[in-house]
Amino acid sequence: MEPAEALGAVLRDAMPVAGRLGVEVVDYRDGRLTLRAPLALNLNDKGTAFAGSLAMVATLAGWSLVWLLLRERGIAGDIVLQDSSVKYLRPVTSDFAAEASHPDDDTLRALYRTIERRGKGRLKLTISLSDLEGIKVVFTGRYVIASR
Amino acid sequence: MEPAEALGAVLRDAMPVAGRLGVEVVDYRDGRLTLRAPLALNLNDKGTAFAGSLAMVATLAGWSLVWLLLRERGIAGDIVLQDSSVKYLRPVTSDFAAEASHPDDDTLRALYRTIERRGKGRLKLTISLSDLEGIKVVFTGRYVIASR
Repeated sequence: MEPAEALGAVLRDAMPVAGRLGVEVVDYRDGRLTLRAPLALNLNDKGTAFAGSLAMVATLAGWSLVWLLLRERGIAGDIVLQDSSVKYLRPVTSDFAAEASHPDDDTLRALYRTIERRGKGRLKLTISLSDLEGIKVVFTGRYVIASR
Repeated sequence: MEPAEALGAVLRDAMPVAGRLGVEVVDYRDGRLTLRAPLALNLNDKGTAFAGSLAMVATLAGWSLVWLLLRERGIAGDIVLQDSSVKYLRPVTSDFAAEASHPDDDTLRALYRTIERRGKGRLKLTISLSDLEGIKVVFTGRYVIASR
């Protein structure tokens, strides 16, 4: 199964919230994962996207990228978010996308080595959320990976 | 209409995501608002609560407390989250509650004064999320209020 397809199946099965907010895997190529969610299912009282939905979709994008990285490396592990921060730059006024990109090669090699030696590693990811007008939200999360 | 009841109506009408995650207003008394959400609608792949759901419910609790404060003061205003951070201390293993409390009286007076003079104010809130075992997540958000 292609990575994006496998991720979609995991989100459907194990992360039911994703479906209830209409989150879909758009693609995963060149180390970049894109998720998408419709404004219509994530409205706030002002007719723009609810901040809580935006935080959730970004959180999910980070989790998903880590899941894809572990799958590529053949590591069976649990992924736990340790902490996160979100900056809301401007209102999201249309359907929106979350983009999560691979860390640089050195960071990735160090992460895999740490997990393989110590059974645990940590990865900080920055994720941007965009609507048709451009980047509206920036999320940073530290994910902990514990191999099983 | 009682404040908690009015808030419940607003969440149902204007924040449809709240209903899809099963969020309910438990009560609002002595300056403390409690929201609740079921684990069953917010599961992750490990059978505990998904971090993104926890962030969303906390975000909603902060928004809701600001909404209640503006209603009490008779201010018509828009509430926008500027930034937030979340610390995930331990996994949430049962239904969970978000608690948001009034800021101290001085902070509240200064906030109202600023909004009434300048049409805009800012409030930092700390919200705790607990399950049956105790506090599991701490959320901090800065909400901006713009009077209409």
